Amino acid sequence: MSKILLKNTEFLAANGKMQKGDIAIEGSVIKEIGGITASWQADRVIDCTDKLAVPGFINTHTHAAMTLFRSYADDMALMDWLENKIWPAEANLTADDVYWGTQLAIAEMLKSGTTTFADMYFFMPQVAQAVEQSGIRAVLARGMAGVAPTAEQALIESETFYREWHNAAEGRITVMLGPHAPYTCPPAYLKKVVALSEKLGAEIHIHLAETAGEVKTCIEKHGKTPIALMNDLGVLDRGVLAAHCVHVSAEDIQIMKQKNVRVAHNPGSNMKLASGIGPVPEMLAAGLNVGLGTDGAASNNNLDMLEEMRLAAMLHKVHRGDPLLIPASTAVSMATTFGANALGLGQVTGSLLPGFKADITLFDMRAPHWYPRHDRASLLIYSAAAADVHTVIVDGKILLDNRTLTTIDEEQMLKEVQQRGMRLIQ
Amino acid sequence: MSKILLKNTEFLAANGKMQKGDIAIEGSVIKEIGGITASWQADRVIDCTDKLAVPGFINTHTHAAMTLFRSYADDMALMDWLENKIWPAEANLTADDVYWGTQLAIAEMLKSGTTTFADMYFFMPQVAQAVEQSGIRAVLARGMAGVAPTAEQALIESETFYREWHNAAEGRITVMLGPHAPYTCPPAYLKKVVALSEKLGAEIHIHLAETAGEVKTCIEKHGKTPIALMNDLGVLDRGVLAAHCVHVSAEDIQIMKQKNVRVAHNPGSNMKLASGIGPVPEMLAAGLNVGLGTDGAASNNNLDMLEEMRLAAMLHKVHRGDPLLIPASTAVSMATTFGANALGLGQVTGSLLPGFKADITLFDMRAPHWYPRHDRASLLIYSAAAADVHTVIVDGKILLDNRTLTTIDEEQMLKEVQQRGMRLIQ
Repeated sequence: MSKILLKNTEFLAANGKMQKGDIAIEGSVIKEIGGITASWQADRVIDCTDKLAVPGFINTHTHAAMTLFRSYADDMALMDWLENKIWPAEANLTADDVYWGTQLAIAEMLKSGTTTFADMYFFMPQVAQAVEQSGIRAVLARGMAGVAPTAEQALIESETFYREWHNAAEGRITVMLGPHAPYTCPPAYLKKVVALSEKLGAEIHIHLAETAGEVKTCIEKHGKTPIALMNDLGVLDRGVLAAHCVHVSAEDIQIMKQKNVRVAHNPGSNMKLASGIGPVPEMLAAGLNVGLGTDGAASNNNLDMLEEMRLAAMLHKVHRGDPLLIPASTAVSMATTFGANALGLGQVTGSLLPGFKADITLFDMRAPHWYPRHDRASLLIYSAAAADVHTVIVDGKILLDNRTLTTIDEEQMLKEVQQRGMRLIQ
Repeated sequence: MSKILLKNTEFLAANGKMQKGDIAIEGSVIKEIGGITASWQADRVIDCTDKLAVPGFINTHTHAAMTLFRSYADDMALMDWLENKIWPAEANLTADDVYWGTQLAIAEMLKSGTTTFADMYFFMPQVAQAVEQSGIRAVLARGMAGVAPTAEQALIESETFYREWHNAAEGRITVMLGPHAPYTCPPAYLKKVVALSEKLGAEIHIHLAETAGEVKTCIEKHGKTPIALMNDLGVLDRGVLAAHCVHVSAEDIQIMKQKNVRVAHNPGSNMKLASGIGPVPEMLAAGLNVGLGTDGAASNNNLDMLEEMRLAAMLHKVHRGDPLLIPASTAVSMATTFGANALGLGQVTGSLLPGFKADITLFDMRAPHWYPRHDRASLLIYSAAAADVHTVIVDGKILLDNRTLTTIDEEQMLKEVQQRGMRLIQ
């Protein structure tokens, strides 16, 4: 069992305070933090002078392989973008493309301090392979569209995928069901999803209330909001990770609280696609677990969780005219503890505590934008950069070592994705 | 005369297109771009494989030495922040502190690709010294508050500063006059500033219409908006760089267009301080030169122009519900050509053209977030990171060489600013 000592590090303790001390990692978990038993001996000691250890970030919503479409189509209206660019390009995707696109996403996420991500896409066994090989932690869902010709096939694939991959890769993989959204999954289909969810004991990852148009159409068609409709159909009783929730009402938030709906807030994607600004302060005040997500790289266009934290902290301040909203400490929680709770992993990861998985991101603070160091949490949220991430540990294994990926051949992967990206848009 | 060849680089041409070729730098200027005369020989050749050359970014509004207060006081209401934190700490500032705080800012700006900045602060000879020694380009103004006990002294200092430093440092320094804002400079004082501006031929850098409260008070007190008041007082006839312009009306924009007021838009600061979201699309549509600025690091909290570009591109989209607003190409222009125009340097810097100053930022594109490379401008605006800045050239001199600063002893400087930052808040 490997033993790693993070020696003399500043760290973000579970109480939200910055502290100084050692962190002992044994096998996949944090053994001790702060003071370490004198007799305990590490195989590897990392000198953490000028470093800050934080829980690895949790990206609660992405479509990893869409990195392949990064910068392909931007500054467009949503339907123009989907119909004329993204969907035709996605039609060209092979299982191998999804494998490599996911590797690209994982490389980028590890290099920016993310240790867990929630994904919804297709060719999911290839996504799971990339997760298994890279060592990252993930919550995976096969996207299902009830209106698509593949609707029934997607249910079958989801069940198979759950049985083969749930709790696989030393427990690093959780499988959820991924009905895409109310506007692509009619009620009859969602009932099938709920039934499958009950049969397997699987939770659900779904897009909800992303745009005003979606909510308007839902009310016209079903006489209720997407949240209320999902509640009626029993979806919310299954344990739900809801991406976006931009256009939710006070009544919706009450329902979400009752049913413990967990939210993936994607400020970057919502801004770039002009989807809107969700009532995140109200959702937080209601006690909902609001995590942060990057969404896919086609609509963001990177997978940098520091950027999402900063946007979450800044966007709601200006939108409401209140500079006290979502302070740095809350933004950090959204990317760590709240995010872990959102994925149902709140007792597994997201906190630096003995017994928790050793999912740890080490920032190197030796850069001008980290000086002077009045407040580490403020520096992390408002000044830090992804490139300051020095070392990343997931499940007790070092996956990024002084900025070098240990499980991914970065050069080869970049060549692959460049070729594949160009082929897809031909 | 030094001769540098950027060999086989991708570059952002002055027509806004990405091209490939060589860039020849001779002395302080770009000699040729694209194809180079065969007989021309460089002293130093930089291999630009996988690199992207862009005009160095223009930070049109900052208070450089306020880096010393980075992370000292965040997530606070404006007056609480100023009265209880910033002003008491600023009262402790010495001339040496300002020198070192400015060095810190310059180091951070160079490392994130900025080659010119517009500053307003005090102890300006020390700021000018830091500019002269570091090799960066700057537009400097001694901040003047008519309501302060130092009001008359500030006018005298401004004149002396102009005579000693305007066009100094091989022409890299431009001096403007810096009346702080209408709410700190009564009309009688602003008339003195206008008179001094006429006497010296100096332009003016001022904060205008930053908050709704400022505009409301101005209308109550003077019966007109800050823009209209400045117009009446003759300020706008002097050549004005106006920071913020968040709360400007359609009539204000007409006046600004008539008087060619140049705007420094600071989206990060406006978001974090909850100042508001200015009518930037309207100002651009009116043909105003809207550049981008970081504002001081106490209210941002970094000096990363890529972040301001991205925020400019994303904030107005979501605010107006229009994903076509401020596309990547416009955001790039705001940080380069528009910014140069805003500082009155539109024929000097901001474009990669023969005869222009060689102010060039080279990005290293070998990182996951630059793949695949469908569109370089999109990658630059929506994916790139400050740490991708590999080499920075100002006035034909290499100031950042493969991420190492050539004119600033970074380690010593970081020690200095850490000590000084801690002392200031005691």
